[in-house]
Amino acid sequence: MSRFRSLLSLLPLLAVACAAPATDRRPERPNLVVLFADDLGYGDLGCFGHPIIRTPNLDRMAAEGTRFTQFYSASPACTASRYSLLTGRLAARSGFAWVLVPSSPRGLHAAERTLADELREAGYATAAVGKWHLGNRPEFLPLAHGFDEYLGLPYSNDMLPPRWPPIPPLEGDKEVESGPDQSTLTRRYTERALSFIDRNRDRPFFLYLAYAMPHVPLHPGAAFAGRSPRGAYGDAVEEIDWSVGRILDRLRRLGLAERTLVLFTSDNGPWIIKGLDGGSAGLLRDGKGSTWEGGMREPAIFWWPGTVPAGRVERAVASTLDLFPTALELAGRPLPEPGRGRNGAVLDGRSILPLLLGRGAPEDRPFFYHGPGHVLHAVRLGRWKLHLKTSSQTGKEYFEGRVPLLFDLERDPSETRDLAAEEPEVVARLTALAAEHEREVAEHGSFWDRG
Amino acid sequence: MSRFRSLLSLLPLLAVACAAPATDRRPERPNLVVLFADDLGYGDLGCFGHPIIRTPNLDRMAAEGTRFTQFYSASPACTASRYSLLTGRLAARSGFAWVLVPSSPRGLHAAERTLADELREAGYATAAVGKWHLGNRPEFLPLAHGFDEYLGLPYSNDMLPPRWPPIPPLEGDKEVESGPDQSTLTRRYTERALSFIDRNRDRPFFLYLAYAMPHVPLHPGAAFAGRSPRGAYGDAVEEIDWSVGRILDRLRRLGLAERTLVLFTSDNGPWIIKGLDGGSAGLLRDGKGSTWEGGMREPAIFWWPGTVPAGRVERAVASTLDLFPTALELAGRPLPEPGRGRNGAVLDGRSILPLLLGRGAPEDRPFFYHGPGHVLHAVRLGRWKLHLKTSSQTGKEYFEGRVPLLFDLERDPSETRDLAAEEPEVVARLTALAAEHEREVAEHGSFWDRG
Repeated sequence: MSRFRSLLSLLPLLAVACAAPATDRRPERPNLVVLFADDLGYGDLGCFGHPIIRTPNLDRMAAEGTRFTQFYSASPACTASRYSLLTGRLAARSGFAWVLVPSSPRGLHAAERTLADELREAGYATAAVGKWHLGNRPEFLPLAHGFDEYLGLPYSNDMLPPRWPPIPPLEGDKEVESGPDQSTLTRRYTERALSFIDRNRDRPFFLYLAYAMPHVPLHPGAAFAGRSPRGAYGDAVEEIDWSVGRILDRLRRLGLAERTLVLFTSDNGPWIIKGLDGGSAGLLRDGKGSTWEGGMREPAIFWWPGTVPAGRVERAVASTLDLFPTALELAGRPLPEPGRGRNGAVLDGRSILPLLLGRGAPEDRPFFYHGPGHVLHAVRLGRWKLHLKTSSQTGKEYFEGRVPLLFDLERDPSETRDLAAEEPEVVARLTALAAEHEREVAEHGSFWDRG
Repeated sequence: MSRFRSLLSLLPLLAVACAAPATDRRPERPNLVVLFADDLGYGDLGCFGHPIIRTPNLDRMAAEGTRFTQFYSASPACTASRYSLLTGRLAARSGFAWVLVPSSPRGLHAAERTLADELREAGYATAAVGKWHLGNRPEFLPLAHGFDEYLGLPYSNDMLPPRWPPIPPLEGDKEVESGPDQSTLTRRYTERALSFIDRNRDRPFFLYLAYAMPHVPLHPGAAFAGRSPRGAYGDAVEEIDWSVGRILDRLRRLGLAERTLVLFTSDNGPWIIKGLDGGSAGLLRDGKGSTWEGGMREPAIFWWPGTVPAGRVERAVASTLDLFPTALELAGRPLPEPGRGRNGAVLDGRSILPLLLGRGAPEDRPFFYHGPGHVLHAVRLGRWKLHLKTSSQTGKEYFEGRVPLLFDLERDPSETRDLAAEEPEVVARLTALAAEHEREVAEHGSFWDRG
């Protein structure tokens, strides 16, 4: 009888073991590679519907991985978006400007914990390559924030003379050149990324590759310039596609594909005021700098052969804020408290591992759109998006600038039909969520503001 | 010596045999299936970038076949577009209205030769299923124009009481019902298509399936209604996707996949004035009824496992006018004279077999855009499109209605930047092509106008 009881006591454990699906046999501490384009539009890849730009490597990445159709950057601007990707925190908590310039006094605060800090402590080799844009003083640079190595430009490729000094490529935190030929950047970044992968093939690694392109001024490499019928913008995107192809090929050839999660996405939407030197948000409204969908919804592809299902399309809402907790879960470094970093800082994302594994969406949670100056512009919950403020770099006042505006983003992805008058209860619910969020953000200010 | 000479005489034959690539071993007289949606937008399929509408079967069709990104219907309106698909002739030569109504006195002239006429004479079984819209008198209907059988509606699903009689589904040329439940149409058409394939599995066949949907009024089937987050429009498209999946599955299961060429496309762009009951042209301007790109450029997928390369994207310009000569070439029924039908009629397309085989584009040729009343609105040659007239059902006068307008459709697929002033030579060349085309069409009028 006691034997029978002890067998019985094992049953729950057996049930758990049997319920664990095959994909839980995924490798421990997988590598993480984040490939981050600059100002790429939602509609600018072949697999997201562009008719002209050739992206065979990204299309293959999507065929071998999962394409997200409602994936957001955390901000429609470069600096703020990058802060959120690396810290898992909304840039309204950063304590610094929406877009940093070379003379900005602030940058990434010493007390912030980045994904690189976390993964390095978990035993990962870490490298940042490309655009940083979180402060250009040494204490703000990648080496001070968890990265073992860095090669890149500390800010945007359009911050140039005569207003600014010649752009300084850095190796670590040392200036190694002045005013480089920008057409070499994508190639050099790619070579550095490949070298980092080669050198760390035998241990877990985190590679953060933030391309300079297709941000203006467009400088595609010599092998790409003048090749795309879409013009210089197409050339720059096609060179990034080439770069992605080389990196995935290297992972395959080194036998690392099945233990590397790769994310390709962009920091914000297309810079449409640049005309044909800017990209296209496809069927989405507006672009960079705006909290209309075109400003923040990005093409996104997750790739991890054997773990992330091939050829899937994921339509759940997710964002770059989710990368931080997802990567920590994969690295086996759970946080002491959900929604809080190891430094006590508020985290705004959550793990999307179930989405990556194709196991369905977690329950709805709000997504917040912050516009210029980190001002809350809009909130999304499920299919509903409420605009409390709107702005566009084009100067256009869609809907005569009227707010609030309510859209059903699934029925109406192009934000054409305002339903605020028809759905007062939804407006009230989202308005309350927004007010609560603003209070919470005001309460949990930046490390800078704590003195 | 004579033996050596006779061997030598074989050499050229050997050379030809060796040069013939594998794909030339394609089956003789392949089946042809044309799946023709109604008012589907360029951006409304998953594989063309729609974020919400679920089209797994069409996405798989694209992954197994070739997706065309610059494929046109021959007209932005239902009737004219269908005339061109079936005859290979621009609808300006049809002799009847741009859009026929139930009381229209004219329809498909007895002297026209359709693709069904040609393929039937080549030994094919032929069936039309779905929307006809080329005249509703018996002499205009499918049985009078090469089809062995027909089940469908003779005109659009929005031509309803009180203005018109209850819509009459036909079996052959007999009315079998009055005012059917439109939500059954996609399912019934699909079942009829499957039955036709089953019955003709042992001989070549041509199936022309013209869906009623997603043309308004939207009536998705019971299994689809209320299922798509995109609303009724999404439901209707998702049901068509289901239908396509069933048809391709049947071809696979009967072992016919490798001897069947399937084309999926639409008759014209999305009916955007219908708001959320209309679709999306993605990054293209305007929609149905207009000669802006959104009115006439269609999602198009060609599928023929083993012959049409899998997973390719084809960016060359092609149109539904090309189906007629392409199908005749495949059926081994060359025309006596290029550009002329067996009845002496001018043909406006040409075989795109090299594109389907992935062997590159033929030389540039003009493509002509005809607007309301078959009036020539625009001409495209290579990357250039010249608008001589513009119109939109939305009433919008883009560019203040100014003409001519010149766009580089590869650099600027959304038609945003008029280059007419910068490229006077291109304007002159395209203006001359347009004038020549108008003269030619006036000279080669319709069979109706010959008395």
